[in-house]
Amino acid sequence: MTDSAHLTHVDEAGAARMVDVSAKSVSVRRAVAAGRLRTTSEVVDLLRRDGLPKGDALAVARVAGIMGAKHTPDLIPLCHPIALHGVTVDFELAGESVEITASAKTADRTGVEMEALTAVATAGLALIDMVKAVDPAASIEGVRVLRKEGGKTGDWVRPEDRP
Amino acid sequence: MTDSAHLTHVDEAGAARMVDVSAKSVSVRRAVAAGRLRTTSEVVDLLRRDGLPKGDALAVARVAGIMGAKHTPDLIPLCHPIALHGVTVDFELAGESVEITASAKTADRTGVEMEALTAVATAGLALIDMVKAVDPAASIEGVRVLRKEGGKTGDWVRPEDRP
Amino acid sequence: MTDSAHLTHVDEAGAARMVDVSAKSVSVRRAVAAGRLRTTSEVVDLLRRDGLPKGDALAVARVAGIMGAKHTPDLIPLCHPIALHGVTVDFELAGESVEITASAKTADRTGVEMEALTAVATAGLALIDMVKAVDPAASIEGVRVLRKEGGKTGDWVRPEDRP
Amino acid sequence: MTDSAHLTHVDEAGAARMVDVSAKSVSVRRAVAAGRLRTTSEVVDLLRRDGLPKGDALAVARVAGIMGAKHTPDLIPLCHPIALHGVTVDFELAGESVEITASAKTADRTGVEMEALTAVATAGLALIDMVKAVDPAASIEGVRVLRKEGGKTGDWVRPEDRP
Amino acid sequence: MTDSAHLTHVDEAGAARMVDVSAKSVSVRRAVAAGRLRTTSEVVDLLRRDGLPKGDALAVARVAGIMGAKHTPDLIPLCHPIALHGVTVDFELAGESVEITASAKTADRTGVEMEALTAVATAGLALIDMVKAVDPAASIEGVRVLRKEGGKTGDWVRPEDRP
Amino acid sequence: MTDSAHLTHVDEAGAARMVDVSAKSVSVRRAVAAGRLRTTSEVVDLLRRDGLPKGDALAVARVAGIMGAKHTPDLIPLCHPIALHGVTVDFELAGESVEITASAKTADRTGVEMEALTAVATAGLALIDMVKAVDPAASIEGVRVLRKEGGKTGDWVRPEDRP
Repeated sequence: MTDSAHLTHVDEAGAARMVDVSAKSVSVRRAVAAGRLRTTSEVVDLLRRDGLPKGDALAVARVAGIMGAKHTPDLIPLCHPIALHGVTVDFELAGESVEITASAKTADRTGVEMEALTAVATAGLALIDMVKAVDPAASIEGVRVLRKEGGKTGDWVRPEDRP
Repeated sequence: MTDSAHLTHVDEAGAARMVDVSAKSVSVRRAVAAGRLRTTSEVVDLLRRDGLPKGDALAVARVAGIMGAKHTPDLIPLCHPIALHGVTVDFELAGESVEITASAKTADRTGVEMEALTAVATAGLALIDMVKAVDPAASIEGVRVLRKEGGKTGDWVRPEDRP
Repeated sequence: MTDSAHLTHVDEAGAARMVDVSAKSVSVRRAVAAGRLRTTSEVVDLLRRDGLPKGDALAVARVAGIMGAKHTPDLIPLCHPIALHGVTVDFELAGESVEITASAKTADRTGVEMEALTAVATAGLALIDMVKAVDPAASIEGVRVLRKEGGKTGDWVRPEDRP
Repeated sequence: MTDSAHLTHVDEAGAARMVDVSAKSVSVRRAVAAGRLRTTSEVVDLLRRDGLPKGDALAVARVAGIMGAKHTPDLIPLCHPIALHGVTVDFELAGESVEITASAKTADRTGVEMEALTAVATAGLALIDMVKAVDPAASIEGVRVLRKEGGKTGDWVRPEDRP
Repeated sequence: MTDSAHLTHVDEAGAARMVDVSAKSVSVRRAVAAGRLRTTSEVVDLLRRDGLPKGDALAVARVAGIMGAKHTPDLIPLCHPIALHGVTVDFELAGESVEITASAKTADRTGVEMEALTAVATAGLALIDMVKAVDPAASIEGVRVLRKEGGKTGDWVRPEDRP
Repeated sequence: MTDSAHLTHVDEAGAARMVDVSAKSVSVRRAVAAGRLRTTSEVVDLLRRDGLPKGDALAVARVAGIMGAKHTPDLIPLCHPIALHGVTVDFELAGESVEITASAKTADRTGVEMEALTAVATAGLALIDMVKAVDPAASIEGVRVLRKEGGKTGDWVRPEDRP
């Protein structure tokens, strides 16, 4: 740890603040985040069957994720309320889990990784809500940023040693 | 999987709905959920140092969790807006992680596990927001219900084979 | 018009107020409302085709309606924030329109017709949002209560002379 | 219907998304929408009398409409949260109805017709809330865009054959 | 100060919490709060003139206060989301000030003084917003509880030595 | 009072409106507001002691203020939803009061004095919530703008004759 490492969201006296980004330039920024619903094969089968006409379960979770991204500044105390210019949420059904991937895009003064992460977490919570009567032990794992693009700090890709 | 297993939040045609709980009785219900911020020892040290006078970082995350519990019906599409009569959020700093535990309590017609889970997830997101400049790879793991009490279905404790 | 007719939501001096319902008893109340998206047969065909696996358009509008019901006290200034114990939103595709029906149920101190109406209006707005690139002239018609049940004033059914 | 007609808010697999508008340019955009409260002449008389000093009913509905416009991205799942630079809501009392007109203006990357429509619908719902004790059968009719200005697609005026 | 004096909203370790009120009984509770916009006689004249037909300024502030009361649990981190069964907001124009009085009523498990105070503060902020172009120095003074009724602790009236 | 003095937020007929600012230029704007919690020396001592490790009370109020600033357009009916690029909230404990100062910064088309004022008021309400069990008579005084910078009207400093 270098001497200069510190939490940007608290000042030198430790007081929380919304960091001033008014001098940062407007540029296109994008972030992709992922996570995983860990449940039972029974639940994954139910969700797969729901892939029939009018099956709303995955759509409900997708909408929850997209709307969750918009709620980010309401949920994360020190997050800036920013423009949000595009959000996608995707699911992939596996044996005993559902992989959740979300991307968020903006042309604004700060990054959108919190929006992508909030989309993943909210979609995961919505999935748990819908499956909890069948599997009350379902959990959300690995909510993390996969990559970021744009902004002054440039691109970032999740290092391989951080699974 | 038994034949009767189904997703309670969609009807027989697959359409999403907010399940009718108006006939359920008002009783005290409680849920405890947990999760974990996985980060670096450097970040955990920074959070620990923040445990000095006026260090707000953990308090910000705690407030985020408590307010997140109140936001649950805004975030989870099919969740009932219910009374919320008590919420606690606690953190335990370990080597490379922060354990997050939340409890929610109500005297209402339905359970509060979604409120406890949302508190954990929101506190975790707030922590990531505050540490992401130092550790952009921080993740949230194991967001899950530990136990539920009260209500018609009675008490539930997380089984040992579901870590 | 009888002499006693007046707007309950303003006092004798004309000032708006949230009417005191604290003395009303908790009882099960239900309301059903309906409305109609008027659009083109082309759009209705697109929505019908969307009834294939993973077609989310109607699910998005259904979720919008259910969440809209929960937002009622945020939107209607003098509405009470009440418990909401069940909501359903249904669509029926016709030639050039989509019939929208919503029901809301509560066990609380006041009725839920505003919640049912808000669900219909919000679902209709969400449909317009999704079809406006194809039909910018789509409109919402006939947002109205069909019937109410429960509460002190008893049941009410929409009279035939009010289409 | 041309072959290329499709719902812009779902991808080729039918999954809902918030369409990426980050590459669109910031320009002034305006939309005007309208609708109508259909009620009884008795109610219209009550609202007209309310046009006396301190009569708040129409003001409550106007505020509901303006605040409703601001709530648009909370209500419409796939709507972008955009800057909103001006909103007006006007009422015209007629025999058995109240004409509602709303305009919304922005300098941002996407149009504001949903904001204008939401203002009309919310003002209409607020009117129903205030008159429902006198006329429980009041309805909202013809919520529709009258014209749009600005943006890449240019101006649009409601065609005469779409009343 | 007695030894037992402590902040109820933090535990013995100083951690914030939403205090558990699930064991408290449902009873009718009421609170009245007040405050004052301090401005210029010019502004008070403008507001008084606005007391003509269609003058919306005081109505806007009244609606802001009523809706502010509903927003209380969103604004005050440790406040319980409770039922709110009646709210009134009144203004009295004096020489260089506007007296603001709000009352809130509930039949729930905890008091409503925060709701009454939030109504006063929000109405005051809305007044400042509307007069700030004429008087940028307008201020809000004396936001305080006048009296509380109901609940286990019984009635409370503001003591004369606390102006 | 000059003849031209009028309330900008209502039109010539008195109807409320969100003033059109789409033609104003984007520039950096800043506002500082202040206020005061008036309570007892006992409460101030409790808050001071809370300045020990893990004492959350002031942090809760600070977070309330920062999040309150973000809620401004939800609370103030005619306020524009704007970008908010930085917020700070500070407290100074004195004998029988807590001085509250908030600053808000943006690069947008309109000023941020309402955001700064809302931060002060919300922080003050959160403090009252936490101390009301010890001092039910605590009040908020002097919520006012101290200075504004940027924008077309230029800088403004609170005149000395307006305390």
